[in-house]
Amino acid sequence: MTYAFRPHVPELTMASGPCSIYPQVLAAMGTQMVHHRTDDFVNLMRSVSDDLSALFRTTTRVLPVEGESILGLEMAAYNLVEPGDVCINLASGYYGAGYAKVLRGYGGDVVDVAVPYNTSVTIEQVRAVLDAHPDAKVLAFVHSETPSASENPMEAICRECHERGVLTIVDSVSGVGGSDVRFDEWGVDVCVTGPQKCLGSTPGMSLVAVSDRAWERARRVIAETGRYERSYLCLLPWRSWVERDYVPYTPPISSIYGLKAALDIVMSEGVDAVIARHATAARATRAGIRAMGLDLWVDDEANMANSVTAVAVPDGIDDTVLRGLMDDRYGLHISGGLGEEAGRLVRIGHMGYTASLQKVLTALGAFGSALNELGHPVDLTAGLEAAAGAAAK
Amino acid sequence: MTYAFRPHVPELTMASGPCSIYPQVLAAMGTQMVHHRTDDFVNLMRSVSDDLSALFRTTTRVLPVEGESILGLEMAAYNLVEPGDVCINLASGYYGAGYAKVLRGYGGDVVDVAVPYNTSVTIEQVRAVLDAHPDAKVLAFVHSETPSASENPMEAICRECHERGVLTIVDSVSGVGGSDVRFDEWGVDVCVTGPQKCLGSTPGMSLVAVSDRAWERARRVIAETGRYERSYLCLLPWRSWVERDYVPYTPPISSIYGLKAALDIVMSEGVDAVIARHATAARATRAGIRAMGLDLWVDDEANMANSVTAVAVPDGIDDTVLRGLMDDRYGLHISGGLGEEAGRLVRIGHMGYTASLQKVLTALGAFGSALNELGHPVDLTAGLEAAAGAAAK
Amino acid sequence: MTYAFRPHVPELTMASGPCSIYPQVLAAMGTQMVHHRTDDFVNLMRSVSDDLSALFRTTTRVLPVEGESILGLEMAAYNLVEPGDVCINLASGYYGAGYAKVLRGYGGDVVDVAVPYNTSVTIEQVRAVLDAHPDAKVLAFVHSETPSASENPMEAICRECHERGVLTIVDSVSGVGGSDVRFDEWGVDVCVTGPQKCLGSTPGMSLVAVSDRAWERARRVIAETGRYERSYLCLLPWRSWVERDYVPYTPPISSIYGLKAALDIVMSEGVDAVIARHATAARATRAGIRAMGLDLWVDDEANMANSVTAVAVPDGIDDTVLRGLMDDRYGLHISGGLGEEAGRLVRIGHMGYTASLQKVLTALGAFGSALNELGHPVDLTAGLEAAAGAAAK
Amino acid sequence: MTYAFRPHVPELTMASGPCSIYPQVLAAMGTQMVHHRTDDFVNLMRSVSDDLSALFRTTTRVLPVEGESILGLEMAAYNLVEPGDVCINLASGYYGAGYAKVLRGYGGDVVDVAVPYNTSVTIEQVRAVLDAHPDAKVLAFVHSETPSASENPMEAICRECHERGVLTIVDSVSGVGGSDVRFDEWGVDVCVTGPQKCLGSTPGMSLVAVSDRAWERARRVIAETGRYERSYLCLLPWRSWVERDYVPYTPPISSIYGLKAALDIVMSEGVDAVIARHATAARATRAGIRAMGLDLWVDDEANMANSVTAVAVPDGIDDTVLRGLMDDRYGLHISGGLGEEAGRLVRIGHMGYTASLQKVLTALGAFGSALNELGHPVDLTAGLEAAAGAAAK
Repeated sequence: MTYAFRPHVPELTMASGPCSIYPQVLAAMGTQMVHHRTDDFVNLMRSVSDDLSALFRTTTRVLPVEGESILGLEMAAYNLVEPGDVCINLASGYYGAGYAKVLRGYGGDVVDVAVPYNTSVTIEQVRAVLDAHPDAKVLAFVHSETPSASENPMEAICRECHERGVLTIVDSVSGVGGSDVRFDEWGVDVCVTGPQKCLGSTPGMSLVAVSDRAWERARRVIAETGRYERSYLCLLPWRSWVERDYVPYTPPISSIYGLKAALDIVMSEGVDAVIARHATAARATRAGIRAMGLDLWVDDEANMANSVTAVAVPDGIDDTVLRGLMDDRYGLHISGGLGEEAGRLVRIGHMGYTASLQKVLTALGAFGSALNELGHPVDLTAGLEAAAGAAAK
Repeated sequence: MTYAFRPHVPELTMASGPCSIYPQVLAAMGTQMVHHRTDDFVNLMRSVSDDLSALFRTTTRVLPVEGESILGLEMAAYNLVEPGDVCINLASGYYGAGYAKVLRGYGGDVVDVAVPYNTSVTIEQVRAVLDAHPDAKVLAFVHSETPSASENPMEAICRECHERGVLTIVDSVSGVGGSDVRFDEWGVDVCVTGPQKCLGSTPGMSLVAVSDRAWERARRVIAETGRYERSYLCLLPWRSWVERDYVPYTPPISSIYGLKAALDIVMSEGVDAVIARHATAARATRAGIRAMGLDLWVDDEANMANSVTAVAVPDGIDDTVLRGLMDDRYGLHISGGLGEEAGRLVRIGHMGYTASLQKVLTALGAFGSALNELGHPVDLTAGLEAAAGAAAK
Repeated sequence: MTYAFRPHVPELTMASGPCSIYPQVLAAMGTQMVHHRTDDFVNLMRSVSDDLSALFRTTTRVLPVEGESILGLEMAAYNLVEPGDVCINLASGYYGAGYAKVLRGYGGDVVDVAVPYNTSVTIEQVRAVLDAHPDAKVLAFVHSETPSASENPMEAICRECHERGVLTIVDSVSGVGGSDVRFDEWGVDVCVTGPQKCLGSTPGMSLVAVSDRAWERARRVIAETGRYERSYLCLLPWRSWVERDYVPYTPPISSIYGLKAALDIVMSEGVDAVIARHATAARATRAGIRAMGLDLWVDDEANMANSVTAVAVPDGIDDTVLRGLMDDRYGLHISGGLGEEAGRLVRIGHMGYTASLQKVLTALGAFGSALNELGHPVDLTAGLEAAAGAAAK
Repeated sequence: MTYAFRPHVPELTMASGPCSIYPQVLAAMGTQMVHHRTDDFVNLMRSVSDDLSALFRTTTRVLPVEGESILGLEMAAYNLVEPGDVCINLASGYYGAGYAKVLRGYGGDVVDVAVPYNTSVTIEQVRAVLDAHPDAKVLAFVHSETPSASENPMEAICRECHERGVLTIVDSVSGVGGSDVRFDEWGVDVCVTGPQKCLGSTPGMSLVAVSDRAWERARRVIAETGRYERSYLCLLPWRSWVERDYVPYTPPISSIYGLKAALDIVMSEGVDAVIARHATAARATRAGIRAMGLDLWVDDEANMANSVTAVAVPDGIDDTVLRGLMDDRYGLHISGGLGEEAGRLVRIGHMGYTASLQKVLTALGAFGSALNELGHPVDLTAGLEAAAGAAAK
């Protein structure tokens, strides 16, 4: 039994996701195979399903789709969007902007609502665009925009759309489990999350909640467009899971073990408590960053995400050098910015396992020390005190 | 740290796949996250890539697609089949028969070549259908038909098609790693396998080899059909991986760890040796089954798979009772038949970790004992002796 | 993170102990450190303690001594034997015979009761020696003699000694958890077991039950002999654990995790059920061996151990060749004989994780196949049928 | 497969030892059993042995004794001390003071050299006591005194004793692997360490290096005193390991796996580099503590240990409250003082896995934050800057 190759693993990862995950999840991943067509495995899946429904606060079943999160989001378009459908797409960041392509890919007549990437869309902007496009069929947006560490007002947007009969497609990959999501109460239609962000498990799945309205639309869209109804992108094969506990594909067994271990943590700690822990970690990080004299990237506290914090790179600092120093000397991996934000911001993830005061203090201490070392002195005393103080609230 | 739920894990799984997997793979799955945009992870991926190329015996890169194996197979149709294309589909089992729907789903004009599910397609049949359809663009078949434990003559079929300029789509999910596959030499165009069969890792990925011809066709098909070129089903986003080591999606990190551990075993044992081990396990199982006076499902030794053996359920035995007894008293999970074969056959998997003489003897001993117990006496002495003898050859 | 060295691990170990252990135990061993002076760890130790008391069926605390089992046995002599004390030592095997040296090492005036190593001491022999030595202070014996796979009648011996006021020292290293042990009811004084046999955990500890009488004697012996009262061999430092939950040394934290996981299995399955499982595995093994026409080493069914079975090596077979073949071709490691029995017997362990019908069939199948291969044909049909039949009773 | 009980594991343990250990070690602990009488296991043990010799910088074999570290230290007295032997015992802390009892327990005529527990013994004091007792046979001392975080000048003391023919017994449980130890060059006679401190593995073993002089003395002492020569405390049974690779007891197999994984880290990083990493972590911790305006417990930088740092509890702070706050809010477990130092100091371990700048910053950040919270403001900016600066040197 010889390992010819093992990756170098950083001491701690607090990046845009995945971050370092729960040890309980890692332990669960090592469980031997249980064949997916046994009662034992089906019972495990049912239990995962119950936990996911509790997490999304829905009575529907959340689909455990295997593939990266973008798969679940593309499924939404494949099943809900017919050529010519007016689709409103809110773009407050890279992922939001990118989704317009998916909608267009399925023939959507896309109305873009774009705001700068350091702020969020307001409910007033949403109402205005809905007023201007009373024929809109679908509105899509990103709940938690990981690339810019911002959050859109999911509740207000979804309630507004629901009232108007516009279906919502919500990318909450880094939202669910870290921020409040009430699928049924808010009238959400499709909401996608991943196990590798706030749940603290491993990447490779797309967890997709689908409302009854969305199921209905899917049936019609597939029939009318003639899209392949057994496609990996089609929701319909998943009816067998919803209706009779039959997962349509060989499930990713080990990932299910990890997900279950993560959900056990969430259920035993409580969904509200886990969300509060993320909010606390975010508040502490922001307080610390500010008290250290640094600037947050997002314009307003109310628009900031619970799972990740974006910090403006101070003038005179090269973010590549900064992050390299953090990797090499401080054993802490964080993320840079994407696209136009490359070089302008760094992102510190506090999600799942890393959503803890200790991890936040570690990140602030290492980050501030690295800045000091690079000739940009910061007030660590104020930073750590502010973080601990914010966490105590 | 509390586990509220853990599945009951059988002592041993020798089913249609996944079977019990290598302990080294299970250990590797517990490795902490390395962020996918780090050099460490990219180096790991490169190493996985080199191993996969060696396994498929190709100089091209095998794509580590995340999602069940059917995803990789559907990608083949999405990228290679235009509406109206004549597509030959060989159906010697459930999976083969099912693929006709995928081809039709993408507009293929499908020519079915069907044979009974207990035999294989012959090269003569293939030549005949190719002669009859000189305009065929694509020929698809299953290399190793897990549901009926049979194998089609991949080398002859692929060489024939390659000469005639017909692209091949090969489902070798339970073939690669257990039977010989020479992607470049045989002129294969798309070949899909999964980590959860002969590689002895965990399900959740589709490993897709693509020839230069297939890449070329894909570019044209996507352009001409207007199919969404950033779809999860589209091959083109994977060019970034092929050309500049950039995986287009967040990879399933833990599954990659498991796959690497499995490939380490294959590389250290040697590809030929691993295939020989599968062949030996299959030969031993068959010899044992026959010597116990039982019937194999597949008509001819030459058509039998290396990864799984199908045994005809003896008259008077209820396969549900038989398999339940094996689960409950013998701690060994095996599979039944699918569809029309339900109740008529049981399937014993000997793949990856379970492709060993010990595991085969365990399976034969438990299977024979269960039959004895159910009133169908078998000659275990002859069975085990024949198995051990066949393995010694 | 690179492993420069990993051992080759056999597919299955069914030796004299340790054998292959429970996967749950292996998983638990990977838990991160909890400092031993925290409430969390003390609570874990208390829970282990409760389980051990339930296992030994005693209201006293079983001491979790760290060191090999021989340590616990030497502690018995250090604390209970004064120079000149008449000590009866029953020797029905290597371990029993060897203990005379320990008793003499502490000044004991040893009366040896020796029987051939393929049988057990009878209660009549014990009564006779007790009658002949009314001044005996201590009687020592091995409950389950692993080297010869035999068992002495622990209940009768301990009850007899208890009535006469003779303290008993019982080596039940491979007995507790596999055979019935009722520490309080039978009036045992010191009973030692290890986690690596019937409990299916990892070696490195000596689990020592001590009666009130033994504690009393220990206090007197230590005081009168002037033996170092803080020695690692002295029981007295362990009073802090008994009286106030304070383990006197840094405990072997990982081994405690493994032990707890093993005890969880025992408690959840039930002590009686686990013992019955061992008895079944032993019965099945013996029935199979006999039906294969082979000879058991121990003279009488009533004297055979539940945790291991000794088989006489057939004439003309070299046990080294036989065991080497089993290692190399069948992936199953079993043990040979010790001392004079080297070459004359092989031992198959069925303890803890390997005490299952499946593992017994695997062992019989591989063992019989290896014998066949070496030119000593055996009736596997009869063997496996007898084993399965014996298990069904 | 259900865990009824799992301990709560703190996010991070930086206590007096064990601290949080290397993930590689945790992973290795989950390896299935390899029987100790197989070539595979013996080869593993030989490899462990080679690594241990390299670590202690000796050509002799270091004994892998199973049991807590105090066992190895008691073995030294059992084997080297005859009744009436003049034994010099240096006491600069709890462990050193306690060893006088062990020496007396074996009849030693002990000469105590005591210094306050916040300083170290000087070589001048050692010379003076050696001059005053030219008949001394043995000199014992603690290299790294974990309870007070101090270090005695091992090289000077051992060289001096070696020249005078006085045998040295060195408790370097928290020294080896963190501070320089050159067993052969310095003429040390017995040196004991444990896997659970600077090696970053799990507790449960005593690693004992023995010089030729010590082996010679042991043979004579055992013969002359009539001590039981097969005792668990006797060195002589270990000759079988030294001379012919035969471990005299069933080894703690899983602990050996963990130890090997830890030694792989040491060997691949290099012994000097690992020691330098400990020195750096210690220097950084001390610089940070001082810059935060707090007092170190030990009188002089030169006397401070590499593996742990003792901090004087500031006036007005209750150490129980402080450590409880760190446990509960900061997820970091550290140790308090022992005996008279209880309440007066806290101890932060930086050993093995926790000997890293990141972990030191985490500890300083959490510790300072907790003090702030309790109304004792500290200068974290200065503290973290000083720590990072000291590490950069």
